[in-house]
Amino acid sequence: MINPYITEKLNPLFVIDESRRKELLLEAEKIPSLIISSAAASNAVMLASGYFNPLKGYMNLTEVLSVAEKMQLPSGILWPIPVVNLVKENNFSKEVVKSVGKIALRDPNVEGNPIIAIQSVEKIEKINEKFYSTVLEKTFGTTSLDHPGVSTFIDSGDTLISGPIEVLNYSYFSTDFPDTFKTAVEIRKEIDERGWEKVVAFQTRNPMHRAHEELCRMAQKELNADGILVHMLLGKLKKDDIPAEVRNESIRKMVQLYFPKNTVMIAGYGFDMLYAGPRETVLHAIFRQNSGCSHLIVGRDHAGVGDYYGAFDSQTIFDILPSESLQIEIFRGDHTVWCHKCEKVVMMRDCPHGNDNYLLISGTRFRELLSLGEEIPTEFSRPEVVEILSKYYQTL
Amino acid sequence: MINPYITEKLNPLFVIDESRRKELLLEAEKIPSLIISSAAASNAVMLASGYFNPLKGYMNLTEVLSVAEKMQLPSGILWPIPVVNLVKENNFSKEVVKSVGKIALRDPNVEGNPIIAIQSVEKIEKINEKFYSTVLEKTFGTTSLDHPGVSTFIDSGDTLISGPIEVLNYSYFSTDFPDTFKTAVEIRKEIDERGWEKVVAFQTRNPMHRAHEELCRMAQKELNADGILVHMLLGKLKKDDIPAEVRNESIRKMVQLYFPKNTVMIAGYGFDMLYAGPRETVLHAIFRQNSGCSHLIVGRDHAGVGDYYGAFDSQTIFDILPSESLQIEIFRGDHTVWCHKCEKVVMMRDCPHGNDNYLLISGTRFRELLSLGEEIPTEFSRPEVVEILSKYYQTL
Repeated sequence: MINPYITEKLNPLFVIDESRRKELLLEAEKIPSLIISSAAASNAVMLASGYFNPLKGYMNLTEVLSVAEKMQLPSGILWPIPVVNLVKENNFSKEVVKSVGKIALRDPNVEGNPIIAIQSVEKIEKINEKFYSTVLEKTFGTTSLDHPGVSTFIDSGDTLISGPIEVLNYSYFSTDFPDTFKTAVEIRKEIDERGWEKVVAFQTRNPMHRAHEELCRMAQKELNADGILVHMLLGKLKKDDIPAEVRNESIRKMVQLYFPKNTVMIAGYGFDMLYAGPRETVLHAIFRQNSGCSHLIVGRDHAGVGDYYGAFDSQTIFDILPSESLQIEIFRGDHTVWCHKCEKVVMMRDCPHGNDNYLLISGTRFRELLSLGEEIPTEFSRPEVVEILSKYYQTL
Repeated sequence: MINPYITEKLNPLFVIDESRRKELLLEAEKIPSLIISSAAASNAVMLASGYFNPLKGYMNLTEVLSVAEKMQLPSGILWPIPVVNLVKENNFSKEVVKSVGKIALRDPNVEGNPIIAIQSVEKIEKINEKFYSTVLEKTFGTTSLDHPGVSTFIDSGDTLISGPIEVLNYSYFSTDFPDTFKTAVEIRKEIDERGWEKVVAFQTRNPMHRAHEELCRMAQKELNADGILVHMLLGKLKKDDIPAEVRNESIRKMVQLYFPKNTVMIAGYGFDMLYAGPRETVLHAIFRQNSGCSHLIVGRDHAGVGDYYGAFDSQTIFDILPSESLQIEIFRGDHTVWCHKCEKVVMMRDCPHGNDNYLLISGTRFRELLSLGEEIPTEFSRPEVVEILSKYYQTL
């Protein structure tokens, strides 16, 4: 199996040792605590799960600027996205936290705001306008508040609390999605048990339609991969995306009916969507390498939103990464269409049949038909998937 | 301006010198003559025009096999397509032609079959089944008689007459298309007069619709070219293609209305379409370099037909040519769609807007609408172009 990113062994920040857990929970009662942002909590879950190996905690100002500007940590390690605990200055006493040197981080997404992690505080740094514009422009390619990732980032706060963390739980991900949420450690273990070597990961935050299904099939075939990891985001999304439970159900049905047994593993990870396009795609590659995958499928406008990124920016960014910084490779997906001659979804670059035989599959049109309760052409989606989605749309 | 292919100066095989022309016409009366195939005649016109520089005549068996198998003449010069005078063994006396050493070639496409060229006969070689299969497989990628280029090739004969030629006229091309037919010599002269350095050629055998128009515009802009050569095939086509006169009229109207003055040159060349896809595309590049163009636009399935070639085979073939064999470069066109947000035709690789905003333009659907006399969406084609094509369709 492919090595984890940078290190030989995964170092997840989840605290397994029972006595250490007890110690930390006791300690938590004596130190200041703070309800953190959903983004910071999901960073903690990713760190806990080994997905963000080899990071040890939240980045400081120097690290964030280095990552934003050069896609590198000051140590030289490639890293595309700031991993931060951004808080509001007025929500805590800087002096107290500084003198104690530790802070308990409370989960904003679980009732009662239980403690999710304990952070050793290295620095507390107020950020300024220029920081915002640099970091946002470099990370998201825009400073527009219309961008869902940008507005979430800005809303989370004005102050960076940096330093290593120890994580006590996986937030709501392990409880709400007990069968689907998996850590990088668990995925590597399962890949090992299945005896897979070459594994291609498919990132999704949406139900899988015919196009996604074929993309997986094409990648597996072309790469001669042993298996496919359908790896879905379980965290927060923009409003018009399909909720994780519905998506999960429809993906499981599709895989069960249309893929050979034991060729697909379905798992989820606990992270809020950033919609940072190319930069987030590199992050996607890193945490799939940590999960033991040799390849990541990157299609059109991967991790994008609106018109912020060029159609293939999330592929071409890999052309400018320092060579051998990543071991995982990407499988480049092209535009897909339904081809009446092939009688399946094809990548346009691979199909000789041309526009006369093509049907473009529009996600918007699909959602329109669904919400109107109209029949969905089977070229768009498997009927069993449509059935699950229809039920959801009827509840809206 | 770019140099001609291989040589410093173009050496067109058209005989300009009046006394030499008279000599040849007199000689023609005394030597055997033969009505050649349309393909051989169009080869003669291309040789006469300087387009096939530096070739001196028709290839022999060794040359044809070398070109087919290695895309090279025995001398090492890159050449993608056999240029042959393929005749039927029973149509002439091999012994007489051999003893005379010369033959007058008669034009099959002009009434009275006037003499188009005089050939010095170097070899007369019967070809066999194996030759057919090798040459066809390598050149056309198929030996299927359903392929229009293959069937034309096989129908033309079983015997190669090779050797240099001197050409006396440009067949029907100069008479039927006096304003459009131009030799490579004439095009170079006009490029020179216009003071253009960087010229991008657009190959067409069809009317130009919005997609073609935009492709030209995008290439010119991206390459920062001084001008565009719209260079149309005037020879024989498969039945369902639009005749050259109609195409010519519609292209001229489109250029006049929608391109800035003095940015587009329209010209035609006298060649029968081979539909040989990638191999023919390399030939297209060679004769555009001979015409003084620095770039050739190569879109999806360039010079292709049916499903014989992959969508981008005609682009990727240039990746395997020996470096610096050609000076002309290609501009790679992607799939084009109408984008409702951009409000124009775009290349899918360049547009961020995605399927929800796209309209696929189907040529078949377009022709259907035309022949039914129904309204053509302006996304497909300029109304002035549609008007000209409609008139033609009403005569069918």
